Amino acid sequence: MNEWQARAEALDAADSLRSVAATFELPDGTVYLDGNSLGALPKTVKPRMLEVIEQQWGQDLISSWNKHQWIDLAHSVGAKLAPLLGVKPTQVVACDSISVNLFKLLNSALAQRPERKIVLSAQNNFPTDLYVAQGVEQLLGSERCKLTSVAPDALHAHLTADVAVLMLTQVDFRSGALLDMQALTAQAHAHGTLVIWDLAHSAGVVPLQLNACDVDFAVGCGYKFLNGGPGAPAFMSVNERYLSNLNQPIQGWMGHAQPFEFATDYHPAPNIKQLLTGTPAILSLAAFDAALEVYRDIDVTDLRQKSLSLSCFYIELFDPYQSQHAETFAGFRLNARLADAERGSHVALEHDEAYPISQALIAHNVIIDFRAPNLIRFGFAPLYNSHQDVLTSLQTLHWLMQEEVYLEPVYQHRKSVT
Amino acid sequence: MNEWQARAEALDAADSLRSVAATFELPDGTVYLDGNSLGALPKTVKPRMLEVIEQQWGQDLISSWNKHQWIDLAHSVGAKLAPLLGVKPTQVVACDSISVNLFKLLNSALAQRPERKIVLSAQNNFPTDLYVAQGVEQLLGSERCKLTSVAPDALHAHLTADVAVLMLTQVDFRSGALLDMQALTAQAHAHGTLVIWDLAHSAGVVPLQLNACDVDFAVGCGYKFLNGGPGAPAFMSVNERYLSNLNQPIQGWMGHAQPFEFATDYHPAPNIKQLLTGTPAILSLAAFDAALEVYRDIDVTDLRQKSLSLSCFYIELFDPYQSQHAETFAGFRLNARLADAERGSHVALEHDEAYPISQALIAHNVIIDFRAPNLIRFGFAPLYNSHQDVLTSLQTLHWLMQEEVYLEPVYQHRKSVT
Repeated sequence: MNEWQARAEALDAADSLRSVAATFELPDGTVYLDGNSLGALPKTVKPRMLEVIEQQWGQDLISSWNKHQWIDLAHSVGAKLAPLLGVKPTQVVACDSISVNLFKLLNSALAQRPERKIVLSAQNNFPTDLYVAQGVEQLLGSERCKLTSVAPDALHAHLTADVAVLMLTQVDFRSGALLDMQALTAQAHAHGTLVIWDLAHSAGVVPLQLNACDVDFAVGCGYKFLNGGPGAPAFMSVNERYLSNLNQPIQGWMGHAQPFEFATDYHPAPNIKQLLTGTPAILSLAAFDAALEVYRDIDVTDLRQKSLSLSCFYIELFDPYQSQHAETFAGFRLNARLADAERGSHVALEHDEAYPISQALIAHNVIIDFRAPNLIRFGFAPLYNSHQDVLTSLQTLHWLMQEEVYLEPVYQHRKSVT
Repeated sequence: MNEWQARAEALDAADSLRSVAATFELPDGTVYLDGNSLGALPKTVKPRMLEVIEQQWGQDLISSWNKHQWIDLAHSVGAKLAPLLGVKPTQVVACDSISVNLFKLLNSALAQRPERKIVLSAQNNFPTDLYVAQGVEQLLGSERCKLTSVAPDALHAHLTADVAVLMLTQVDFRSGALLDMQALTAQAHAHGTLVIWDLAHSAGVVPLQLNACDVDFAVGCGYKFLNGGPGAPAFMSVNERYLSNLNQPIQGWMGHAQPFEFATDYHPAPNIKQLLTGTPAILSLAAFDAALEVYRDIDVTDLRQKSLSLSCFYIELFDPYQSQHAETFAGFRLNARLADAERGSHVALEHDEAYPISQALIAHNVIIDFRAPNLIRFGFAPLYNSHQDVLTSLQTLHWLMQEEVYLEPVYQHRKSVT
């Protein structure tokens, strides 16, 4: 496989983003291909957290809400996200979790279409998004909210003038398939249907133009490709036409027009702030804010190019590996063989023994993740992954299949929770 | 005032919790009487955060969900809170904000009483709690949820068999008045009404016996007397009789019975876990977990005794200050002159010039907070405040009134956000 080694080295040598990996703390000797589950630690985070803990919390205490702008942190993180999303800083806010935020926006969207009740989604949407919609349906009753989840190729047929909201995740968490945001949003709008996009696997790695696509609402996650830290606050982005009238239902003091008046009645702030509810988790939010510094001098278009280069290299290697090692690689199937424009930033292999193989890969320092029942996901974070990482992951996979390492009982029986 | 100095010293010398203050980082030369807004920094937090950032996130990355039990952190924090609340560890979970959690529990409680619609609360409840109920009313319609907020002394008269939920905050954020949890819960139950208690200003400083009082639901906040850090996750506690059937509406994968099966339909976990929604903010939650170590060897009954000693000393000093300094102290009124059993852990002074006086106190290192329109709150955190702090706060207040420091334009015009 010397030709592949040479090719990996050549691709890495030509990588204009190669030096960016040095802005992350990464464990030595580990190939980390799980940035789509938990992004790696940016070096900007630790000094920021020490400042927040020692000086801001420890010394300046309550005055830090003003002195260190904790009160605006949800918005300053939003402003850093805006260029990655293709919206204005005044359209984005960071808070709560993606599920809580989706609950807010789904109710907001339904309130914009009171004469309709159907929420259309894909059966292969990320399950938590479906759970959120099921929760809204249970709460409001099926006469006000009815989730219809259909096969992805049946979405178009189900887009009718009955549909209040089309709720989709841009990148499929299993296959890595990337939906066409512009086309689907336009198709929905042609029926008067609003669209909520979940950007969990695309923000920070796929160039986004929410305003150019006239997207109504979007949610996304801070802890995957954006490297905001474990369970980092999520974000919401809203089309300007709704900012005067969002009617989000989880009303709390941080969304009030005048929170420090402590008035008895709720009056939403006349801007994106109305999407806030309670006091934001400042430590987690500050880590996310620091992590986004990595993006300051980086063009997401370049990241996208490198992401595709990594996944293409994987796919390019997979076929010769399979043909040259027919016996060991026979059980693997690429979950989806997608064109560049239809691929996010991960690739998934199917295998009947995906669980123990995943465990064995992890034990041998190739960190990927298993997704039930039979997928091994290889995530490519163009900020810090290299083509060498791609090659090493396949070399390791080959070795442990050949040596039948994955058959060791420890990998067969251990139960993963992530 | 030498007699008061001697008295402060004697009280501090007799304080069995005196050494606990050393477990906190506190700024030199500052009297911090705002632990009811943001608790001080426990020394356990920084090393824990460095461990979480450097080792867990930085080195162990995604495997930390198992290896460092991130997946159970919401419950391990809950277990540490349980003895402070008088419930079992399996009844408490830490997540989201107090407002989001109140939204969940209010809907759960309403679902338990489908034939009733009234949510009864006090007009002087913390506004965000009223906003949450107003949001539920707006979402469900007033035929399913109708907030009735009445004067505190009219609560009893309004408790009828029409009331689905009584929603109260145990300690009034203005006056510091402490409600009788046992009596009010029993009164509500006599009408078949469920009770949700907001413990924001009582958890960690007032001994709580939620199970002994047969409380249905409670929410509380991590960042006040519990010192969990700015915007720390909140908590929920649930009576065991509802754990099989909570029907909380913000459904997300962390509350699923089998979150890693990625099933299409939501099936709530058959335990307290069903109250979780999205991925928890691990950094903020870990800080809260570390902060709670402070409580390991402390009996809340002792904290309560010291808290009352501090507030009694304040009240005891206030009258002689007012009579001896009639001119400078004439404008102050104790917001409520409460018996020990009816007082939480803060005292509030009313003054027409409360805003500039608050600003001047803060500028002169007595950190309190202003609550519109005319209150100055002095919060007593028995974990780290001393009787000397109480005396210094009144000495400083006297000095700046006498010297008319608060009339300086800088204090008049600055706008506080907390």
